[in-house]
Amino acid sequence: MTSYVLTFSCLDRPGIVAKVTSLIAQHSGNITSAQQFNDPATGRFFMRVVFDMANVETFSASLSSIAQELSFDWRMRDVAKRKRVLILVSKFDHCLLDLLYRVRIGELRMDVVSVVSNHSRESLKLSNLHGATFHHLPITRSTKLDQELQLRNLIEETGADFVILARYMQILSDSMAQWLEGRCINIHHSFLPGFKGARPYHQAHERGVKMIGATAHFVTGDLDEGPIIAQNVEPITHRDTPAMLIAKGRAIEQRVLASAVGALIEDRVFLNGRRTVVFD
Amino acid sequence: MTSYVLTFSCLDRPGIVAKVTSLIAQHSGNITSAQQFNDPATGRFFMRVVFDMANVETFSASLSSIAQELSFDWRMRDVAKRKRVLILVSKFDHCLLDLLYRVRIGELRMDVVSVVSNHSRESLKLSNLHGATFHHLPITRSTKLDQELQLRNLIEETGADFVILARYMQILSDSMAQWLEGRCINIHHSFLPGFKGARPYHQAHERGVKMIGATAHFVTGDLDEGPIIAQNVEPITHRDTPAMLIAKGRAIEQRVLASAVGALIEDRVFLNGRRTVVFD
Amino acid sequence: MTSYVLTFSCLDRPGIVAKVTSLIAQHSGNITSAQQFNDPATGRFFMRVVFDMANVETFSASLSSIAQELSFDWRMRDVAKRKRVLILVSKFDHCLLDLLYRVRIGELRMDVVSVVSNHSRESLKLSNLHGATFHHLPITRSTKLDQELQLRNLIEETGADFVILARYMQILSDSMAQWLEGRCINIHHSFLPGFKGARPYHQAHERGVKMIGATAHFVTGDLDEGPIIAQNVEPITHRDTPAMLIAKGRAIEQRVLASAVGALIEDRVFLNGRRTVVFD
Amino acid sequence: MTSYVLTFSCLDRPGIVAKVTSLIAQHSGNITSAQQFNDPATGRFFMRVVFDMANVETFSASLSSIAQELSFDWRMRDVAKRKRVLILVSKFDHCLLDLLYRVRIGELRMDVVSVVSNHSRESLKLSNLHGATFHHLPITRSTKLDQELQLRNLIEETGADFVILARYMQILSDSMAQWLEGRCINIHHSFLPGFKGARPYHQAHERGVKMIGATAHFVTGDLDEGPIIAQNVEPITHRDTPAMLIAKGRAIEQRVLASAVGALIEDRVFLNGRRTVVFD
Repeated sequence: MTSYVLTFSCLDRPGIVAKVTSLIAQHSGNITSAQQFNDPATGRFFMRVVFDMANVETFSASLSSIAQELSFDWRMRDVAKRKRVLILVSKFDHCLLDLLYRVRIGELRMDVVSVVSNHSRESLKLSNLHGATFHHLPITRSTKLDQELQLRNLIEETGADFVILARYMQILSDSMAQWLEGRCINIHHSFLPGFKGARPYHQAHERGVKMIGATAHFVTGDLDEGPIIAQNVEPITHRDTPAMLIAKGRAIEQRVLASAVGALIEDRVFLNGRRTVVFD
Repeated sequence: MTSYVLTFSCLDRPGIVAKVTSLIAQHSGNITSAQQFNDPATGRFFMRVVFDMANVETFSASLSSIAQELSFDWRMRDVAKRKRVLILVSKFDHCLLDLLYRVRIGELRMDVVSVVSNHSRESLKLSNLHGATFHHLPITRSTKLDQELQLRNLIEETGADFVILARYMQILSDSMAQWLEGRCINIHHSFLPGFKGARPYHQAHERGVKMIGATAHFVTGDLDEGPIIAQNVEPITHRDTPAMLIAKGRAIEQRVLASAVGALIEDRVFLNGRRTVVFD
Repeated sequence: MTSYVLTFSCLDRPGIVAKVTSLIAQHSGNITSAQQFNDPATGRFFMRVVFDMANVETFSASLSSIAQELSFDWRMRDVAKRKRVLILVSKFDHCLLDLLYRVRIGELRMDVVSVVSNHSRESLKLSNLHGATFHHLPITRSTKLDQELQLRNLIEETGADFVILARYMQILSDSMAQWLEGRCINIHHSFLPGFKGARPYHQAHERGVKMIGATAHFVTGDLDEGPIIAQNVEPITHRDTPAMLIAKGRAIEQRVLASAVGALIEDRVFLNGRRTVVFD
Repeated sequence: MTSYVLTFSCLDRPGIVAKVTSLIAQHSGNITSAQQFNDPATGRFFMRVVFDMANVETFSASLSSIAQELSFDWRMRDVAKRKRVLILVSKFDHCLLDLLYRVRIGELRMDVVSVVSNHSRESLKLSNLHGATFHHLPITRSTKLDQELQLRNLIEETGADFVILARYMQILSDSMAQWLEGRCINIHHSFLPGFKGARPYHQAHERGVKMIGATAHFVTGDLDEGPIIAQNVEPITHRDTPAMLIAKGRAIEQRVLASAVGALIEDRVFLNGRRTVVFD
């Protein structure tokens, strides 16, 4: 018996769950976990089913015809097959360190196939990439398209399922963002209220906010505005200097990004227009 | 079309979801929400399905035979039908106040049929019970069984679905607790580490804990040890006196109890041995 | 012996703490609590001292001359003397209810001298104002200045120390806001990112945020932009409808406003330019 | 001008703050931060003052005589002088990794002089100790006292100010704990309610708790019962397996320990009987 995770979304209509779960039962599959969500706002239906099955061939064929009938796209994956991930980073490597460690202790079950930076290897404080190949792809305004082409080739060569911007301080071009749609996530600071422009922690300090946070989201053309996957915050006080805010911000960024990556590699995240559905 | 919520749990086996959801589809029902959980530790399966259906009669009959076949108990309820709730209280009425207010603004969709206290009406700071009948059922060591009998009669007469101990400072007898199993919840303070005995906030202060919290749980024979439904905490500091801990504790108790009651009246809570399953 | 709280702020310079605390010692006062903060960003110094003293007359006189020398304003208050508070409200009264209850159980040590609404008494769900006088001061675009004049008279007549906008859905005029500077606080929702305009919870839902929160702040000309006193947030999920966000928002608003009011009436809040200093 | 941090605690009496701050002023020092706490429960007074001063010699001498007069112990430290820290670890190195990283990025301003484990270097997943010397001090029931003697020598040789048990799975002997009193902290899991014995996360899962947490505390003879410095928790659900609890627990342990270590090396932690005073 092998364990599979099946995910799909479609317009809601009566009988979807019945059809899919009956099909699994007919092929002697046993559902071990299932989550679904009907969004009353958009009329869309989202489902994630984990099941054990001996032979998935004929099941796949039958599922295809149901999918055609109900017009939905589906993905099915052997749970044991680890996702391949490429991580982009600039100079700050606290998120990279955190992700690599969680991989190493088995918390994040994924393979980091490559670490790419627009700065040289020496710019990273991190001493060990634990098997991930490092690529230095410098970027200037005039070489941006070239660099993105190299990056694109690298993503294709390595067969990366996901790209993680782990404090990568470059805005992807619209075409690159579009090409990566649904496969690329970013982490950035978040405040109540928010701030545009440079040195956000200094702005937050100047404005006297009492909480700071971070947001992990899908990358779209607009860098910090894609569908949100995870958020978290921490309280701060008048004693916190900008330097202390930055330090606290790092810790929040680490755990918010790790949480979003965990959801992503376990197929628990769905795009739902400008929003996401994230199953626990 | 009427909206129903169906809940059941049974030993896990292949095909359960398929059978139930197919039956809903056959009776032209449309599932608007479904949650399920397979507990690998106990082998039990839990499901909550909300669906719209025009006529539920023949569906109920068919469901009964499936339930017999898979040997599970099920409950089905018209979503619009409000749960009836009896609230027990002693002198501290902050939880009672909070529950009544959440009922009044429509956040908790339930009917408070009766408020019962072992103290007189005058002992409550609360000025208005908003239609709930007040019953004074005093208790002494020697009248405990009598009082519980009166309480039992009251629960039956009022047709209460649930009993909420909203800071009721009496321990129910074993037989009473057993009679109310799965229908009665309690709120109590919680600390890291925990403390037994009187004046727990003073003990927590004396021990110098840095967080205090509250736990809402099903009542069993052992007052503070039943299956946990909800918990929450707040940070405290060395500046917090016992009086401040008590004040903070009140706020936590209010919101933890409200959260547990909300889950209960929406049929989102299942007993699972010593634990609970609480769907979001 | 009477307990006093002394608060002041001034430009930082060597010897301030020594001068003030020596003066207290010379007058046989005993400091029971003191907090101070030197803001490196603005060069300002903030201090709050609580002390017991038998006779405060000569101490006050000496303090005045030190204050003149170091050019700072100071306030000193008998700790037992309760602050007088006027609460403004529109139709939503969950914050009003929460404040009145915390007053009643002794958690907030203040006197609510008046409750003012731009709607009639019947618009409030709350049944009992516990001694606070209710004033209906309706407002239209053309009567705004008149209404604010009435409000101003009422604040003066009642001798209110603070005005709390407890979900008062009117923007104060610039002149009114200026007149109330440092004496008036407001509560409003806060999101990551923030949203302008109507129906913010619907906007937050549409945008798919994963946390919602509330901010209590001093009122300035710009309604939601004054110096922040307290903030808090709660996690939400894709399952939360706008109605659920509004319900969760209410609970957050209650506890953030109560926290800010508590700090204010205990003289723990200082204005520091666009920011605040809030001692624990 | 050099920046110093002065800390002391004594029985509370009038004039202490005045005496100490006047002395600083007399020696042309400028206070940049001060925190104090009078514990009404124990009658003790705690103070931490940070000040800039050109020449600290004569000030120290005068302070000594005040200290003798008021019978208190004091410590004064050049803020720029980094604390020396020795870290003890067994096989789980997530806390060690986290501490070393925070040192490297400048968040924790301390020198890790030595990493000691009862297991071999190969047992650690961590690839780089960034300059800290590794010592393998194996331990068995019969060699415990010997091992602790070696450890004691190492602490003395390296001049370590603090010892951090970063998931060191050995209980220190009473004499060792006593020798390290106030200089040694430990991190351990915390639950609501707590659990004794082996495999605590499995016990917490079995009991169905809805929150898990961690506690950082001073080490005393009773391993998990010393004065608490920091605590934190996270919510969990019925879906969390013991493995997921352990993973979440790791993240909480990391940030609670880092928070406690940060407070310790900045002289913000005081012992207060069975409790602590931790200034922000």
